[in-house]
Amino acid sequence: MQLLEDRIRKDGIVKEGNVLKVDSFLNHRMDIELFAEMGKEFKRIFADRPINKILTIEASGIGIAVVAAQYFDNAPVVFAKKSQSINLDGSVYSTKIQSFTHGRVYDVIVSKKYLSPEDHVLVIDDFLANGCAIEGLISIIKESGATLEGVGIAIEKGFQDGGKNLRESGINLHSLAIVESMDAATGEIIFREQ
Amino acid sequence: MQLLEDRIRKDGIVKEGNVLKVDSFLNHRMDIELFAEMGKEFKRIFADRPINKILTIEASGIGIAVVAAQYFDNAPVVFAKKSQSINLDGSVYSTKIQSFTHGRVYDVIVSKKYLSPEDHVLVIDDFLANGCAIEGLISIIKESGATLEGVGIAIEKGFQDGGKNLRESGINLHSLAIVESMDAATGEIIFREQ
Repeated sequence: MQLLEDRIRKDGIVKEGNVLKVDSFLNHRMDIELFAEMGKEFKRIFADRPINKILTIEASGIGIAVVAAQYFDNAPVVFAKKSQSINLDGSVYSTKIQSFTHGRVYDVIVSKKYLSPEDHVLVIDDFLANGCAIEGLISIIKESGATLEGVGIAIEKGFQDGGKNLRESGINLHSLAIVESMDAATGEIIFREQ
Repeated sequence: MQLLEDRIRKDGIVKEGNVLKVDSFLNHRMDIELFAEMGKEFKRIFADRPINKILTIEASGIGIAVVAAQYFDNAPVVFAKKSQSINLDGSVYSTKIQSFTHGRVYDVIVSKKYLSPEDHVLVIDDFLANGCAIEGLISIIKESGATLEGVGIAIEKGFQDGGKNLRESGINLHSLAIVESMDAATGEIIFREQ
């Protein structure tokens, strides 16, 4: 998606350790007009799929997923929670996810009430790197008996294995921008042609 | 807001300990059509204010804030983060917030880049109870030099002190639904007339 690649080039900051900071428009300060364009693009990509639910994970996936849902006939959005809250029933699907960004393992849960075999699910998240978060969400979808229709990602780090592994396992994965390489010294970012 | 009160009566679940579970439409599974109506109502309430930024807090405020932003000329939404991420600069506003729901104290941060004296801020969140989260966000806004134009809440627990304290201190606070009392035994919920 040219608009997103241009924005990453303009406002993304490359740091040592394969860190790409996009918090000025994607995951701290959120650009709502950009999110709308991303939502339309997800709809274009997954138009042939009978999607009736969107699943994301707190926190930075929520904004993108909620705006995108408006282009999928206002499909309800469920967000997986990163730790057991006393406000949630004990009746949950759960998995463990290793976070690269935060350097720890999360318990991730979705209430069994909000995923079921009737659901045709699009997973949306802001980033895909090693794929642990997405694999966790997919395992929850499988456990629920719902159908995974696709995975839509804003920014994929193409030099990490998450995208490759998911595509090889047959997942209908599309990323709006795939970073092929980036250089913390020069700030240069190269995108994969799609 | 009648639509929200009706929905809380229909789908909200009252539990012992003053817990109101609305995770079927507000803060786990999110009803996007309801969020749009709530966004329009926030715009109606705060129409006279020169709002150019929306501030919320992860995770359950984000969906409501992002949809509402579309009715405020796509004002950017900044969400306060509940713990220091290695992806954030050290240059942040921070405060501590006591969470009733999770039974612990959070460090809450907002990057200094995304709040400044030019900003006219509407704070949006899903719940107001003792008011600690909102007071934390207000202290961050004050520290930044931005102008607080108002606070918009989906559901206020009117039997706790947060709303009273904020209104007494002159905050332009509006809640779409104020629960006056609720009964875990009967499930009855009584709303304050507004």
